[in-house]
Amino acid sequence: MTDAYLVGAGQSDYGSFPDESYRSLFATAYENTLDAVPEGIDPDRIDEAFVGTLGVGGRQLGLSGPAVTEHVGLHGVPTTRVENACAASGYAVRQAVQAVKSGMADVVLAGGVEIMTDASGDAVRYWLGVSGETEWERLSGTTFSGVYAQMASAHMREHGTTKEQLSHVAVKNHSNGAKNPHAQLGFECTLEDAMNAPTVADPLTLYHCCPTTDGAATALIVSEDVVDEFTDDPIRVAGVGASSDRVGLFQRDTYSGVPASKRAADEAYEMADRSAADLDFAEVHDCFAIAELMAYEDIGLCERGEAGEYIESGATKMDGEMPVNTSGGLKSKGHPIGATGAGQVVEAYKQLSGQAGDRQLDDPAVGLTHNVGGSGGAAVVHVFEREQEVEQ
Amino acid sequence: MTDAYLVGAGQSDYGSFPDESYRSLFATAYENTLDAVPEGIDPDRIDEAFVGTLGVGGRQLGLSGPAVTEHVGLHGVPTTRVENACAASGYAVRQAVQAVKSGMADVVLAGGVEIMTDASGDAVRYWLGVSGETEWERLSGTTFSGVYAQMASAHMREHGTTKEQLSHVAVKNHSNGAKNPHAQLGFECTLEDAMNAPTVADPLTLYHCCPTTDGAATALIVSEDVVDEFTDDPIRVAGVGASSDRVGLFQRDTYSGVPASKRAADEAYEMADRSAADLDFAEVHDCFAIAELMAYEDIGLCERGEAGEYIESGATKMDGEMPVNTSGGLKSKGHPIGATGAGQVVEAYKQLSGQAGDRQLDDPAVGLTHNVGGSGGAAVVHVFEREQEVEQ
Repeated sequence: MTDAYLVGAGQSDYGSFPDESYRSLFATAYENTLDAVPEGIDPDRIDEAFVGTLGVGGRQLGLSGPAVTEHVGLHGVPTTRVENACAASGYAVRQAVQAVKSGMADVVLAGGVEIMTDASGDAVRYWLGVSGETEWERLSGTTFSGVYAQMASAHMREHGTTKEQLSHVAVKNHSNGAKNPHAQLGFECTLEDAMNAPTVADPLTLYHCCPTTDGAATALIVSEDVVDEFTDDPIRVAGVGASSDRVGLFQRDTYSGVPASKRAADEAYEMADRSAADLDFAEVHDCFAIAELMAYEDIGLCERGEAGEYIESGATKMDGEMPVNTSGGLKSKGHPIGATGAGQVVEAYKQLSGQAGDRQLDDPAVGLTHNVGGSGGAAVVHVFEREQEVEQ
Repeated sequence: MTDAYLVGAGQSDYGSFPDESYRSLFATAYENTLDAVPEGIDPDRIDEAFVGTLGVGGRQLGLSGPAVTEHVGLHGVPTTRVENACAASGYAVRQAVQAVKSGMADVVLAGGVEIMTDASGDAVRYWLGVSGETEWERLSGTTFSGVYAQMASAHMREHGTTKEQLSHVAVKNHSNGAKNPHAQLGFECTLEDAMNAPTVADPLTLYHCCPTTDGAATALIVSEDVVDEFTDDPIRVAGVGASSDRVGLFQRDTYSGVPASKRAADEAYEMADRSAADLDFAEVHDCFAIAELMAYEDIGLCERGEAGEYIESGATKMDGEMPVNTSGGLKSKGHPIGATGAGQVVEAYKQLSGQAGDRQLDDPAVGLTHNVGGSGGAAVVHVFEREQEVEQ
């Protein structure tokens, strides 16, 4: 089986852009991706595309994949929309890896896009809610904030996690996001800001919840046969893992973790012949502060139940032993649903290729991205390795 | 690269089922698929799933893939929803082939489901319309009947195709569907019925349009490493092709053909090292009668412009030289959008494994399925070969 490589990735700004369309945002991410390829790339080389979106807010519910690739001049290129809620474009990247490894494609564009902010509060709730379990969660009025609040409550009860520890997630991610020019909420916040903000769903305050966001992100995955044409410093997709679960939280055995995340991470580590100890950084799915803490445990950065102490220790800060969400994460960078997974890959690409600017880590070689759909009905994990560093 | 094999496929009845849910229909297709595997299969062997749906009518717009696989006990199995409008599950089958060829999975479930009939006329129009180009087609009031009526008009003008020739498609497909116990409109119709039915969008009459349908269909695609465990008479996925195009018809160079279909067919033939002349039968995308005629030309069953004469000659009847839509096609069997592509694969499986009952062809060895999204914004083609027959 051929190996798959990440040779470029880019994103639009994340934020609220009433004058942009889902097509123009996708085009910006696409152009930035082409520009990021070290040796350049002719768009004619792209022979497959996967687009993740929840349906761009109803603007183009069917064929939303071809609708964006045609806009950037790729009509004729097989384009498949993939959707697994907030993990849509994490799965798009995974499909790109499968396409390359299958031998059916050599150069694959994978990404996602969402428009969320130019809608009423009701519409935003609807478009977020549709990824929740319909009969017993959404239609009975449970929001995603409510579902994650239940997870936070369970984690607090079982493991003694505190609201202050949750707030440290916000402080860290805003601190990182303030260094990311693409971030939607690119400002710092204090522990007091996070603790004392209005409650959204107890125990989660406003600063424990990500914003709604417009944005797009894309990446180029290529086969080992052609990677040398595009870069002298290849980044290999060393591991890929995915798993699904009951869509409704109430049907799972645990509320204080995401079993699909653990299975996805285990699979990715096994494929990469790596463990969490080998990572230099991780981008994890922090749609709510509790989600980042659960991710620490699910992907093995710390033991089960110890995530609260782990964030408090500073380990996951930019200068800690295991920086997490250097991009600012979903909390500060923003969460344009269909673009989020690919956006994490953009950060991995920037860190591994030394282009992360003010938030550049010191020569990282191995990074992980972790993307969750809904409250854990789907999860996908990638491990990326900078080959030259790893081989030294 | 490993070859991919089709070892089982099954469907629910197609029709209007107010007492069924999208989950129960999917479960029926899934059970029928497991039952179809000659040597049987333990569901624990399934290590990946792809589900095509347009969002089951809004019932579970996000995570609709995991929502159906969890229902049949496959939670934990990575499940990805793929969507390319009416070609959703044709693409799901293609993704299954890529997954197998990538070496990342050995046994993959691919299928689709849709619920369409328990909605108001407005809602049905909405859920069909969302696959049309939004700004210039859907929001300006163009329906899919309208778009295909424009294609029919163009074909008539350019090639002299007649309303009678269009009507022959309906007569043939209803004749075939009357032999299919799963068909929604399993009754015969006459040329006069088709000619004299009410006009839906001139020149298309009611009999030139497929119905709206509830239903599900699934297939099992496995790697060559494991195929022998499941069957002694393997059916190989010899060729796969896909292409995209401008979502809006008005932006394409031709109205009288579907360029994405031609590109997809050419790619599938090349991969299979086959041509149209090698086929023993084809299931093509006849959402409207004109779509079947265009398909004849796009996949190379006849020359460009000659589809009208070709259908009139009887060549594509059950006892003709190239039987097309022995299942009844979308016209008579029904068109549950997300299930349609997989449903075509069900017919290919039944014909190639000799289980097509009253509509069984005489020992066919090579069959093709052709599935279109929207008015041609996406198309996917598969060529299936019964290995033992082909090798003789």
